[in-house]
Amino acid sequence: MSDTPLLQQLVEAFRCLPGVGPKTAQRMAFHILERDRDGGRRLSAVLAESVERIGHCSRCRTLTELEVCRLCANPKRDQQVLCVVENPTDVMALEQATDYRGLYFVLGGRLSPLDGVGPADLGLELLGKRLGGGEVKELILATTTTVEGEATAHYIGEMAAALGVPVTRIAHGVPLGGELEYVDSGTLAHAFAGRHSV
Amino acid sequence: MSDTPLLQQLVEAFRCLPGVGPKTAQRMAFHILERDRDGGRRLSAVLAESVERIGHCSRCRTLTELEVCRLCANPKRDQQVLCVVENPTDVMALEQATDYRGLYFVLGGRLSPLDGVGPADLGLELLGKRLGGGEVKELILATTTTVEGEATAHYIGEMAAALGVPVTRIAHGVPLGGELEYVDSGTLAHAFAGRHSV
Repeated sequence: MSDTPLLQQLVEAFRCLPGVGPKTAQRMAFHILERDRDGGRRLSAVLAESVERIGHCSRCRTLTELEVCRLCANPKRDQQVLCVVENPTDVMALEQATDYRGLYFVLGGRLSPLDGVGPADLGLELLGKRLGGGEVKELILATTTTVEGEATAHYIGEMAAALGVPVTRIAHGVPLGGELEYVDSGTLAHAFAGRHSV
Repeated sequence: MSDTPLLQQLVEAFRCLPGVGPKTAQRMAFHILERDRDGGRRLSAVLAESVERIGHCSRCRTLTELEVCRLCANPKRDQQVLCVVENPTDVMALEQATDYRGLYFVLGGRLSPLDGVGPADLGLELLGKRLGGGEVKELILATTTTVEGEATAHYIGEMAAALGVPVTRIAHGVPLGGELEYVDSGTLAHAFAGRHSV
C-alpha cells in the first residue's frame, strides 16, 4: 500500500488530461466513485487497450489500432484523390462535414524549424513516395492557415508539382453565416484579397 | 476485434466524466495518444484500482480504500469533536482551510424527501450510535446553507440535543447556497472559527 491515499492518487491522475485543474480532477474522481463506477471501469479498460494498441496507419499515418486504417483499406474510396491534413481530428471533421470520398494523409503537425519539426517528422518522404507512384491525380491541401500551416502547404505543393501531381488548396474566407464585423481582420483581409468573379 | 474503431470507443469512454462533451472527449483522447501515453497508462491503472477498492470508511463514511480512513485511525485527532459534512470533498476542503483537529462524519448527501433521501440514506443511525457513546463532547454542523442542508442540520441538531451532546453550527459567512468545496478558503476558515451554539 502506498502512503498516498488512493483517492488522492486518482485526483492526481486525472490531471494528465488537457484543461483539467485540481478542482475539475476532484470533481471527476468523486463523480466516478459516487455515481458512475461502471463508466470508470469501461474508461480504464478502453484507455489501457488504447495506449498499448493504437498506433499510426502505415499508409496515411492517422491514429488506428490496425496496420492499415479503415479508410485506407476501404476499396470504395477514390484512390486518385489525396487530402493532406495536419491531425487525425481533421480527418474526422472532414468526414463528418463533407462528402469527400478520396483518401487522406496525416502529417501529425506542421513544419516549424524553431520547434525542430522538419519534413522527416511529418512523414513527407512517405508522402513523396505515394505521389511518385503515379496513382494520385489530385492532391488537396487542407493544412491550417497559420504561418506554419501555409509554409507546410507551400512546401508540399512544390513537392507535388515537381512530381507532376496537380495540387488544390481548400478555400479560406469568411465562414458561412459569419457577420463581417465579427470576423477577425486576418480572415477578412484574406477573403477580400481572394475575391473571385461570380 | 470490435467493429467500432478503438479510438472512437476511447472518445466515447471519456464522456462518462462530468462536463465532458464530444469535442472535449476527442481532445482528451488525442492528447493522451499523441503526447502523454504514460499519463494515460497511470490514469487507467489508478482508475481501475480505485473503482474496485475505494469504499466508505466504516466510522465516518468518507471515501477510502481502507476499512477505517486515515483521519479516523489517527490517534492524534481530537476524539471529542465531531464535524458533520455532506460530502468527502467537504472534508478535504475543511482540512485544507482550517486547523480543525477533530473527526468528521460524512452524510453523503442531505435530507431530501422529494428525492427519496431519508435519514437511513445519510447513515444517521450510525451517527446516533456514535453520539450516544458518550465520547463526543461537541458536534459541529457543517452542512450547506441550502434549504435541504439547513433541514438536515436541524434534524441532526435535534437528535444530538436529545442525546445531550452540545451542538454548534459553522458561522454564516459562507454565501447562501454555496457548496463548501467552491468557497474560498479564507471565508471557510472564518466561518469555521466563528461557529456558535444553536
